[in-house]
Amino acid sequence: MIYFQSDYVEGCHPKILEKMAETNFVQTPGYGNDAYCGSAREKIRKACGREDVDVHFLVGGTQTNATVIASILKAHQGVISADTGHIACHETGAIEAAGHKVLTLPSEDGTITGDQVEAYCDAHDACASREHMVQPGMVYISFPTESGTLYSKEQLTSLYASCRKCGLPLYLDGARLGYGLASSRNDLTLPDIARLCDVFYIGGTKCGALFGEAVVIARESLKKDFRYIIKQHGGMLAKGRLLGIQFDVLFEDDLYYKICKNAVDAALRIRCALEEKGIPFYVSSWTNQQFPILSQAQMKYFSEGAAYEIWEPIDEKNTAVRFCTSWATTGENVQAMVELIRNMPL
Amino acid sequence: MIYFQSDYVEGCHPKILEKMAETNFVQTPGYGNDAYCGSAREKIRKACGREDVDVHFLVGGTQTNATVIASILKAHQGVISADTGHIACHETGAIEAAGHKVLTLPSEDGTITGDQVEAYCDAHDACASREHMVQPGMVYISFPTESGTLYSKEQLTSLYASCRKCGLPLYLDGARLGYGLASSRNDLTLPDIARLCDVFYIGGTKCGALFGEAVVIARESLKKDFRYIIKQHGGMLAKGRLLGIQFDVLFEDDLYYKICKNAVDAALRIRCALEEKGIPFYVSSWTNQQFPILSQAQMKYFSEGAAYEIWEPIDEKNTAVRFCTSWATTGENVQAMVELIRNMPL
Amino acid sequence: MIYFQSDYVEGCHPKILEKMAETNFVQTPGYGNDAYCGSAREKIRKACGREDVDVHFLVGGTQTNATVIASILKAHQGVISADTGHIACHETGAIEAAGHKVLTLPSEDGTITGDQVEAYCDAHDACASREHMVQPGMVYISFPTESGTLYSKEQLTSLYASCRKCGLPLYLDGARLGYGLASSRNDLTLPDIARLCDVFYIGGTKCGALFGEAVVIARESLKKDFRYIIKQHGGMLAKGRLLGIQFDVLFEDDLYYKICKNAVDAALRIRCALEEKGIPFYVSSWTNQQFPILSQAQMKYFSEGAAYEIWEPIDEKNTAVRFCTSWATTGENVQAMVELIRNMPL
Amino acid sequence: MIYFQSDYVEGCHPKILEKMAETNFVQTPGYGNDAYCGSAREKIRKACGREDVDVHFLVGGTQTNATVIASILKAHQGVISADTGHIACHETGAIEAAGHKVLTLPSEDGTITGDQVEAYCDAHDACASREHMVQPGMVYISFPTESGTLYSKEQLTSLYASCRKCGLPLYLDGARLGYGLASSRNDLTLPDIARLCDVFYIGGTKCGALFGEAVVIARESLKKDFRYIIKQHGGMLAKGRLLGIQFDVLFEDDLYYKICKNAVDAALRIRCALEEKGIPFYVSSWTNQQFPILSQAQMKYFSEGAAYEIWEPIDEKNTAVRFCTSWATTGENVQAMVELIRNMPL
Repeated sequence: MIYFQSDYVEGCHPKILEKMAETNFVQTPGYGNDAYCGSAREKIRKACGREDVDVHFLVGGTQTNATVIASILKAHQGVISADTGHIACHETGAIEAAGHKVLTLPSEDGTITGDQVEAYCDAHDACASREHMVQPGMVYISFPTESGTLYSKEQLTSLYASCRKCGLPLYLDGARLGYGLASSRNDLTLPDIARLCDVFYIGGTKCGALFGEAVVIARESLKKDFRYIIKQHGGMLAKGRLLGIQFDVLFEDDLYYKICKNAVDAALRIRCALEEKGIPFYVSSWTNQQFPILSQAQMKYFSEGAAYEIWEPIDEKNTAVRFCTSWATTGENVQAMVELIRNMPL
Repeated sequence: MIYFQSDYVEGCHPKILEKMAETNFVQTPGYGNDAYCGSAREKIRKACGREDVDVHFLVGGTQTNATVIASILKAHQGVISADTGHIACHETGAIEAAGHKVLTLPSEDGTITGDQVEAYCDAHDACASREHMVQPGMVYISFPTESGTLYSKEQLTSLYASCRKCGLPLYLDGARLGYGLASSRNDLTLPDIARLCDVFYIGGTKCGALFGEAVVIARESLKKDFRYIIKQHGGMLAKGRLLGIQFDVLFEDDLYYKICKNAVDAALRIRCALEEKGIPFYVSSWTNQQFPILSQAQMKYFSEGAAYEIWEPIDEKNTAVRFCTSWATTGENVQAMVELIRNMPL
Repeated sequence: MIYFQSDYVEGCHPKILEKMAETNFVQTPGYGNDAYCGSAREKIRKACGREDVDVHFLVGGTQTNATVIASILKAHQGVISADTGHIACHETGAIEAAGHKVLTLPSEDGTITGDQVEAYCDAHDACASREHMVQPGMVYISFPTESGTLYSKEQLTSLYASCRKCGLPLYLDGARLGYGLASSRNDLTLPDIARLCDVFYIGGTKCGALFGEAVVIARESLKKDFRYIIKQHGGMLAKGRLLGIQFDVLFEDDLYYKICKNAVDAALRIRCALEEKGIPFYVSSWTNQQFPILSQAQMKYFSEGAAYEIWEPIDEKNTAVRFCTSWATTGENVQAMVELIRNMPL
Repeated sequence: MIYFQSDYVEGCHPKILEKMAETNFVQTPGYGNDAYCGSAREKIRKACGREDVDVHFLVGGTQTNATVIASILKAHQGVISADTGHIACHETGAIEAAGHKVLTLPSEDGTITGDQVEAYCDAHDACASREHMVQPGMVYISFPTESGTLYSKEQLTSLYASCRKCGLPLYLDGARLGYGLASSRNDLTLPDIARLCDVFYIGGTKCGALFGEAVVIARESLKKDFRYIIKQHGGMLAKGRLLGIQFDVLFEDDLYYKICKNAVDAALRIRCALEEKGIPFYVSSWTNQQFPILSQAQMKYFSEGAAYEIWEPIDEKNTAVRFCTSWATTGENVQAMVELIRNMPL
């Protein structure tokens, strides 16, 4: 059985474990104040093309989202998100647990537009009894989205302009950022993202690390006291060095980009094989997640050879499923998968 | 410079890194549903002498405390704690952030008694307007305490009896549990603790792991839906295997106890050397933390050779400081420290 | 100008003010422990046909909803509601502020069905990663709904059966309960409601009182410690007598029903006049709120003689508006309104 | 039996009921946007000697405290208060329920000093790991305090200067403000208070109203979006006119001051009679609350003629109790109480 059901089925890039082992007995201060974190911060600043951003390391995505959002919103404010956004669906109400409503916008492919944001804010402001409703306080997007889709530079520029116009900080969840940047259809760079968002995070967990997410705060007014919020949300790792070491390795010699490229290439080979068989897709993704729509017979066929995740029932006979590649997906497994697809009964 | 300022200045026991490297490319399901977590759970159940306890793995202590407490309390309830308890002082209000007050009891040495708990509850129940006050909903203790002190079996038995009488679940924070169990003055075993608490956690971060805490839920009524609360608090590690592997290694062949014993032995050698010089102590600790009271000259003397943490100003001239050993403290460093102490000016 | 824009534009039924004036200097204990509250509780129990229900008095609807929901849900649970529910739209996120997500079901007319609830719960339970999602913990409905529609006895019986099957307490928001019970299309009695819900509240603010809502807790397991939650939510009125007096007057000689009947009769006269002119309705309401769809010219016409509330834009030319009657609406004002409608340009 | 156990045992000043009855059928908009609220706001601004303050009306004290504090604090901040403060003791954890810790300072008589505040902030700022602790975000005081004591103009000036120095907004809880202003030992005026605080509230519930508290926001930066927070906390009364009418009456012709003066005079006659009998006091109060220390026999003696509240056990034989007067206390009842005291057995 080959596992394609998520992008966290393996450990981490071997260089990370090597560096951990090599530095294991070096004594360092805790909580992210060590030299490895310092070095990783410098590399990330350089990769973002900005010396003035703050960089913080947290452990996981749900924690990072809850921390960033709690640091920005006031008590009466909510966060605008696509209705399929991770914070709206798959974080057990962590945002609400911190007191805030997720204000959802309908989305076909996981992205939202500047026009949608402006319309939402205009409607709120126009309402005579707006104080009876949650005030929009920021905007959350993910890149790639939950469905593997991407914002183009034009789209992100437009969305950010709308956010600025409405006075809403824009936060980009980059759990799979590496896979987005590595896509052949992507025209955004890390410096673009650092310029077109107020806060974002560079995902480590799904992109080669054991765990860890690097929050980049680009807007000056959002920097103050962020470490308090990290600690309050249980995100301040005692042995913060572990986060520093991982990102230091990943941002050495473009390793992060290189290994993510591998995942996307693998995913596109699978996509291609599925297309050749005429399989329809739930959404057109050019990143490491592919969402073919399978019949029950096809699902059964794959379930014996390649593990996937059930995504969404389409109708009584067909279901969208997810095949995920990762930095660790081997050429052998991709080849085996392609064979499986080719031999699939129609 | 030797670092004694905390018990998380090094990485982890080398066997953990070995096992991580060895299993790095094994594909596993996420979120703690892998075989390593399964194996670690089994070993912990065995070590607790109970097959019926639930075992969950979380990343860090603040997160674990917030998760356990949120899973137990109702909206109008608070958690009783010593006024020096970690949740009362050093978690940036994580308990309050989840809506609950920490109800503090005065404590000289970090421990609280069954009598204190009963008196608190009796006073609450006796109050005609008790609904204007936060209702006590559970009791939090740590073992060892923040000051390195211990509950004896008699004390814990008595405290637990009082908790049962008041209908309050008892939760034990075992961030340094290994160092407590390894103390020569300790008469409690892990099965005792599993019998005399409703929930507790076995600390990994400070006791040989890279990170990780193992929550043991002994009381049946507290088990339901705990994983929802873990996820909501950002504590459900995607690559849960990392927690499983670590505890699986630590609970193989009593490694956890053995390495913690080393730390306590080292701490007692330092204690002994300080006593020989006539240095007074803030509190009498028989675990891995030692709290001598130093003059300014003495603090300056040490700050050039052995890093410590400032604990509490005693008066204008003297300060309680903390020297911490850990599973990783080497014999050489202890010997160097003992020499430093012997040569200290009085 | 006549005001029909809400059902709280006047003070209260004169008998309430009389009783307040008459008892003004009687000394009573505070916080709802006075004889007037006692008497009102007895009358409400009698009206519910159950001696075993708990009755509590709170000040307003948002506060009551927040209090009841906080008293029922656990930290990881949310409340199921129609997407148009008051708690989902018009309480500035009070439910989220207490840590809970509102789980919305689509609804055309403001009601939800037992099938919808069961389907939601089944989908949740069937999900392999359900702990990543908010667990449904209770169901919220309103009677009449926000759109003035009603549940029939059959519908409520079916919905409650589904809630029981799913283990979810059913809570009915009766802000306008009197207007629902007084509708000619209603076949539910107060005893029915007390039997087909676990908790509900009898609205006073909109139904003849100055302010005040009477929470009735029918299910034994939901009664404990409710007063703590009231106090925590700022709902425990110091001079609780004011709430007791009001409900005591309203539940004397069926005053509550009689005055609400007046409002519904007035609304139906307005409905009838609008129908005669061929005006379409946003929703068919048989209670005190009417939602005609008006053109811009018609809106302008009315805005000079009869104040209404803008409800929902329908298309570029037409808007649903709300005309509200109340217990205090006079025959003269209804007659004047009917004339206005008759003279309305088409 | 005469009731002295609290200052809310009667209804309200008769002029309020008269005005309510007189205006009962006047139609007004809801939520505080009516002409009565407008007029009351103007009178309060005038009484504060400032045209630029914002004035909002809420229903009760706990709600007001929770609302004001939630509107000021960020997620990681707490509110500094005397350990006897109402928010620390008697609001069922409403502040914690909104996510914030109450940071208590020891206090003998209910007041805190600027030096205490500065020392707390300095210690926080000096701490290397301050992000592990709750950051002080504002200061809460009450005037009069829970023990009936007062801040002098000098004390409040000094406290406010310290708050400004530390960057902390100062909030004054004036639940019994009228009784403080009316005290012969008071040297503060309402304009002084409006100048020496950032936010405060003028208590109505205990000072002649049926219910209601008027929040005055003096600092510009704290004004924005306050109505959202009121609504979220369930404090936006639908028939807001009721609050407007009450404060409009109370601030007409200095009624508020006059009726509060009556209560303080009555309290001082009782104080005097107790002093003549040589009864010691728990605290020296010059406002409407008196706290004599009684023996068990004396408590029994009074409990047959004059209801009081038990305050605090002093030792095994003696207890501090509270006798409270109010705007409604009659000369007859004071005289009867004085007689009771004179005849008390020693």
